[in-house]
Amino acid sequence: MTVQTKPAIVTTGPVTGSRKIYSAPPGRPDMAVPFRVIDLASTAHEAPFPLYDTSGPFTDHNFQLDLDAGLPQIRAPWIARRGFAAIDPRAVKPEDNGFAPADRLVPPCPAPRTIYSGNPGQLITQYEFAQAGIITDEMIYVAHRENIGRAEAAEGVAERRADGEDFGAAIPNFVTPEFVRAEIAAGRAIIPANINHPELEPVIIGRNFLVKINANIGNSAVTSGAAEEVEKLVWSIRWGADTVMDLSTGRNIHNIRSWIMRNSPVPIGTVPIYQALEKVGGDPDKLDWAVFRDTLIEQAEQGVDYFTIHAGVRLAYIPLTAKRVTGIVSRGGSIMARWCLAHHQESFLYTHFDEICDIMRKYDVSFSLGDGLRPGSIADANDAAQFAELDTLGELTKRAWAKGCQVMIEGPGHVAMHKIKENMDRQLKVCHEAPFYTLGPLTTDIAPGYDHITSAIGAAMIGWFGTAMLCYVTPKEHLGLPNRDDVKVGVITYRLAAHAADLAKGHPAARLRDDAVSRARFDFRWQDQFNLGLDPDTARAYHDETLPKDAHKVAHFCSMCGPKFCSMKITQDIRADAERIAGLEQKSTEFREAGSKIYLEAPAAE
Amino acid sequence: MTVQTKPAIVTTGPVTGSRKIYSAPPGRPDMAVPFRVIDLASTAHEAPFPLYDTSGPFTDHNFQLDLDAGLPQIRAPWIARRGFAAIDPRAVKPEDNGFAPADRLVPPCPAPRTIYSGNPGQLITQYEFAQAGIITDEMIYVAHRENIGRAEAAEGVAERRADGEDFGAAIPNFVTPEFVRAEIAAGRAIIPANINHPELEPVIIGRNFLVKINANIGNSAVTSGAAEEVEKLVWSIRWGADTVMDLSTGRNIHNIRSWIMRNSPVPIGTVPIYQALEKVGGDPDKLDWAVFRDTLIEQAEQGVDYFTIHAGVRLAYIPLTAKRVTGIVSRGGSIMARWCLAHHQESFLYTHFDEICDIMRKYDVSFSLGDGLRPGSIADANDAAQFAELDTLGELTKRAWAKGCQVMIEGPGHVAMHKIKENMDRQLKVCHEAPFYTLGPLTTDIAPGYDHITSAIGAAMIGWFGTAMLCYVTPKEHLGLPNRDDVKVGVITYRLAAHAADLAKGHPAARLRDDAVSRARFDFRWQDQFNLGLDPDTARAYHDETLPKDAHKVAHFCSMCGPKFCSMKITQDIRADAERIAGLEQKSTEFREAGSKIYLEAPAAE
Repeated sequence: MTVQTKPAIVTTGPVTGSRKIYSAPPGRPDMAVPFRVIDLASTAHEAPFPLYDTSGPFTDHNFQLDLDAGLPQIRAPWIARRGFAAIDPRAVKPEDNGFAPADRLVPPCPAPRTIYSGNPGQLITQYEFAQAGIITDEMIYVAHRENIGRAEAAEGVAERRADGEDFGAAIPNFVTPEFVRAEIAAGRAIIPANINHPELEPVIIGRNFLVKINANIGNSAVTSGAAEEVEKLVWSIRWGADTVMDLSTGRNIHNIRSWIMRNSPVPIGTVPIYQALEKVGGDPDKLDWAVFRDTLIEQAEQGVDYFTIHAGVRLAYIPLTAKRVTGIVSRGGSIMARWCLAHHQESFLYTHFDEICDIMRKYDVSFSLGDGLRPGSIADANDAAQFAELDTLGELTKRAWAKGCQVMIEGPGHVAMHKIKENMDRQLKVCHEAPFYTLGPLTTDIAPGYDHITSAIGAAMIGWFGTAMLCYVTPKEHLGLPNRDDVKVGVITYRLAAHAADLAKGHPAARLRDDAVSRARFDFRWQDQFNLGLDPDTARAYHDETLPKDAHKVAHFCSMCGPKFCSMKITQDIRADAERIAGLEQKSTEFREAGSKIYLEAPAAE
Repeated sequence: MTVQTKPAIVTTGPVTGSRKIYSAPPGRPDMAVPFRVIDLASTAHEAPFPLYDTSGPFTDHNFQLDLDAGLPQIRAPWIARRGFAAIDPRAVKPEDNGFAPADRLVPPCPAPRTIYSGNPGQLITQYEFAQAGIITDEMIYVAHRENIGRAEAAEGVAERRADGEDFGAAIPNFVTPEFVRAEIAAGRAIIPANINHPELEPVIIGRNFLVKINANIGNSAVTSGAAEEVEKLVWSIRWGADTVMDLSTGRNIHNIRSWIMRNSPVPIGTVPIYQALEKVGGDPDKLDWAVFRDTLIEQAEQGVDYFTIHAGVRLAYIPLTAKRVTGIVSRGGSIMARWCLAHHQESFLYTHFDEICDIMRKYDVSFSLGDGLRPGSIADANDAAQFAELDTLGELTKRAWAKGCQVMIEGPGHVAMHKIKENMDRQLKVCHEAPFYTLGPLTTDIAPGYDHITSAIGAAMIGWFGTAMLCYVTPKEHLGLPNRDDVKVGVITYRLAAHAADLAKGHPAARLRDDAVSRARFDFRWQDQFNLGLDPDTARAYHDETLPKDAHKVAHFCSMCGPKFCSMKITQDIRADAERIAGLEQKSTEFREAGSKIYLEAPAAE
């Protein structure tokens, strides 16, 4: 292989403090659903803590990295049973790789794979199976995956559910495969799972499941090597990205995608119009249906799991953006707007929408209906252009469902806090509860360099209100291309926002992790606190900056206050004083029973 | 002076891209209210953009740093007119500086100041003046300060107000001194302004004003030099802290505080029980009213503007915390809980509350009634202990008002999103609309190392709901002591959260800054975008990582996408195509008037 695929470039090995395990759903010993568990200090007297795990085989200590071979094809037997036709893939064309000259051409991933395509009379998509009342292997897999912690903590589930506010969601105490099927059949959830992506560990995206997050990667103008691109994926999922969008442009785009697909355990999304634009030399006016159609087939055969399609940017809506402060900020949206104006025609994505559906259905590529007119500033939020497009996305949702496709809807953008809920409520209504997938939203425009935070505020809120997946924003948003550290910060930030949303919704098991961290904190089990957190390495490093000695990690005080002042130490002393506490509890009961009068009237006299 | 006060240690000079100006309120040519303005590119054709400025004289390019002399005493003539008695200050005792030996003793700040104390028959506090119908100089000052941008943007003010959701706040289009007086008289706002803090640039804290933020500093166990401690203050306010709490412990606490007070243009808050505990050797059981009372007088004479007093931690509430996951996490709360249990007596802060009021009134030290029983974990939020204490804080608020004192109320802590609003609503109700001052709240426990973000989510929300001031949280929360970078990140994070809250409330002028940033972004005025943001240096550095050449800062495309893909460039092209747009607007009007039917029915045919 070339130097670009040297295994050392790709990060492997367990997340600090975690151990990978696999668990089989009831009755399916052939299935191995991945989790990671954290072994806690013996003083905790607690079972290893299980966590949902997006990181794929790369964090399995037994894993042998072989990018050429790609990941194990765990879905291959499931797909094989469905009787799809093996096809000869579309021949790769020079423009697929941006006309890269031979000496600059990154070779394709050599992993051998059978390419499938469904036929009109077959059930192909998860939506079609669900509508037909059939529970797929993918549905069984995600049901087991989503149940993390619920069985172990059945006690208290009802209380945790009742404690939340879910704005009309219907989160079950326990996820059954039948529940998954029903949600997909209703269009309320999707499992993006191209039949040509056998390496996928399926994940479900829907309001009644754990809130998911997406990270974007891309090679941009300067071509990187294949291993570097795979590492961007691996790094993103290591920290918790549930799906990854490959937004690459420029040369080698097709071949690099082959490395990503064959080595991705998570759903991969793309924006096909980006590659189509490359093929016509970067001039939006030269785009047409033929080149777009060909690109869809090219990417669908490679196994891309969802496509962003900006079919809601209709000619008539473009003038609605003319007086905006920031016009059209979506790349796909502006490309299509430019095309519509240049030709003074309706968007070919809209006029050919049924054909797009037919292509996507054949491979079960899910729709991510793009919000090309999303607001790019606080000033433009919730305006006529944005909501006109949303209405059209709702119309297209029904058309895609009628064609058997899975659909989610992309959302903003830049929205001040008080306008966020309207976005969610309208989307649920006009898009018939199809899953919402939002970018942030950013709640102010004034913090370039900190937009992961301005957007985490909006993301946590809209996730609480019902958004199914949150697209991350990194600190480099509006300023430049994220580096490795930025990607990690973006992913961790969105993981915490998604979790805050799950908590607020009253997810039956979400709070178990908060409670485990808090117990560790209160017990001064520093290692447990670090390992149970989203980023053990950073937490440990921050702690060690102040108190670098190992001895302090078992110290019964915090580095903030020192031994004399530690409030938790004082509280532990209070708690340890059991006899007195017992007496006080009696007093307290008397106090409450007496309507806060008797005990308080003469406290100084005691 | 000693090496510790070398001016080079303290950061001076303008914030990048800003220029300090002073403005006099109508009819008060003697007053100089500070702002900073940002001069925009000539291509913007926009007036210099004015910003509220907390950074004090340190960012004035004419400022000559002289820590020994302290800052100019801008309030001295105002205070002098009130006829307070000049007093001999309490003699400094060895325990005030933690019994620091002579060779380790940091000398006190030598700046000469007259120490005042009010008398029973006088009006002393801003609350008393307000209740008497008298508008103070401080009220005139803060009214002018709060009006930033409102006069210039009178057009559209009503629309921006109507656009927000303020949950029953009463934010005026324009702030008059009389409005300030009325808000203070009603107890809905405070101006923390000790009569012994003549260097103060007054600031108002209340629900109907801009949301404020506080940063904490402290020398902790290892004694730093005086200049280093002043620099922590200067660094915090440079990035936008409206008030600063000095949480120092250990040696030299009194003398270091003298340097901070004489060089602070912002209100300084403290938690006097920390110093009192130092004086009794760190053993909470040895605390008593005498040492606490003496500490209050010591700090009040130095000019501290507000005291956190944990008088709501009553003996009867302590057992309510026994079954919590994280018990009592407030330092002050746990100290008092320990004392109550050790003596089995009601808290001396509660039993001596009237005397505390009498002392604080004499100097106009504002109350920050501490939430010693705030939740330290998601599990403990909104529990009986927390709300029992809040009820008591409401009772104490009325008692403090009856004594003429200004009052704000401290709030949590760790609270999942769906329980935040209950905190605000209850606080408004049981504390009679006294300003709320919250720590975060953190919306999940699972992200040690990222708690500035978990808490920014909660802070933005509770600020929106009505909290008047947000206490920052740094990335080191729960892990260690924040360094210089952590403090900056914490302050910027809270500035953006506070601004997001102002925006959502529909503050009449808040959105002007977002719009200015967004116009700069859309026009590719990179320097303007950086300078208008909260942290010009970081934004510029992030941009330069990807496109380091100066030429790119005037480039008409973004570093994210490059020239071919730039969506904003495409939109600008669209907008520039004025003739076509005009035609399209006509079409769009037809479209809307026709109920989205006619124009859309045959778009492909055009």
